[in-house]
Amino acid sequence: MGSNAEDDTPAGTHENGPGPDRHIGILLFEGVEELDAIGPWEVLSHWTQVFPQDGWSVSCLSRSGGPVTCAKGLVVHAHHGFDDAPPLDVLVHPGGEGTRPQLDDEAHLAWVRRMRDEVPLMTSVCTGSLVYAAAGLLRDRPATTYHAALGLLAELDPSIDVRPDDRFVDDGDVVTSSGVSAGIDMALHLVDRLAGTARAQDVRRGIQYDPDPPV
Amino acid sequence: MGSNAEDDTPAGTHENGPGPDRHIGILLFEGVEELDAIGPWEVLSHWTQVFPQDGWSVSCLSRSGGPVTCAKGLVVHAHHGFDDAPPLDVLVHPGGEGTRPQLDDEAHLAWVRRMRDEVPLMTSVCTGSLVYAAAGLLRDRPATTYHAALGLLAELDPSIDVRPDDRFVDDGDVVTSSGVSAGIDMALHLVDRLAGTARAQDVRRGIQYDPDPPV
Repeated sequence: MGSNAEDDTPAGTHENGPGPDRHIGILLFEGVEELDAIGPWEVLSHWTQVFPQDGWSVSCLSRSGGPVTCAKGLVVHAHHGFDDAPPLDVLVHPGGEGTRPQLDDEAHLAWVRRMRDEVPLMTSVCTGSLVYAAAGLLRDRPATTYHAALGLLAELDPSIDVRPDDRFVDDGDVVTSSGVSAGIDMALHLVDRLAGTARAQDVRRGIQYDPDPPV
Repeated sequence: MGSNAEDDTPAGTHENGPGPDRHIGILLFEGVEELDAIGPWEVLSHWTQVFPQDGWSVSCLSRSGGPVTCAKGLVVHAHHGFDDAPPLDVLVHPGGEGTRPQLDDEAHLAWVRRMRDEVPLMTSVCTGSLVYAAAGLLRDRPATTYHAALGLLAELDPSIDVRPDDRFVDDGDVVTSSGVSAGIDMALHLVDRLAGTARAQDVRRGIQYDPDPPV
């Protein structure tokens, strides 16, 4: 983006444009799938910490601000609670078995709807999109989710154009991704969208992301 | 492996063979790179928890057993300290900036050498292999590391056959991998080696690992 970067406010950011105060929040909750949250954390924290000149930061938040026990039993601390988190430009809602009780947790769905009102870019990994569907965020939109939850996504909101074959679906102010490891690809797409392709390539190299599944 | 599984003791396990007590430990330490540790954690905990019949378990350990602050600022809890960890069949030593002080931390290097004596299969992610090199584990062996640390690996032990282009290097009782995200590929290789290709494919599908870097 070169020297014209300051004239090129990326879509999905607050109108004040580039500056030191744009912030990404990654939601943690009981039963969050570890890699759903920490894949994007690795990508986004590498970007924001190695390239602070881009003016972004990232932190993890939980309702209380306390630690959570993830789906596979890892305990991870949030940096903020809902009450003391900075205003968000981007939210990442991971998935995991902990999303199931959220689907009829009115307090959580109300928080998600409030975030939708306040946060320009809402994103999800894996079954995080089920929660967005239950909150009504995906009405008449294309979206995806974990391969084993595609049917449930359509059931929660039959108006959704379910995309079973997409690694992630960027529909402007909402981006949903497929399962678990797909959060890494989606997060690199976010860097591409928010800071340009060259920067996303820097981050990809930084985490040596040349995946080569051996099976 | 079907009904003959009990006759087919995988290499790199204690001689008592398949049973409910084979254990993988993932090392946590101050400044560990988040995805170095939690990529393998996701793969291995998915395997061991979804397929308990394979007789493996996995946990995270730190010297004191307490939480650690990772390289990018995430705080993660260990399940065990060095003193109360179960006997390990496999150790995963991640990398991160926290490996630099370990390179001349005699207490840590002595622990790594003791693990080498006790643990049949020693593995590393990213700059974890620098610590193995400093401890003398890689003498006259092929190995790899994070792309930016290849020179330092050769410097630490010029007898190492450095493999800059390999995603991971399996040299029997020691497996080293390249940077950060490569731990996911290496961990899938471990499942393949310890439980067979079909199982590793199950785990790959479980974490929907069909990577598709967008940049």
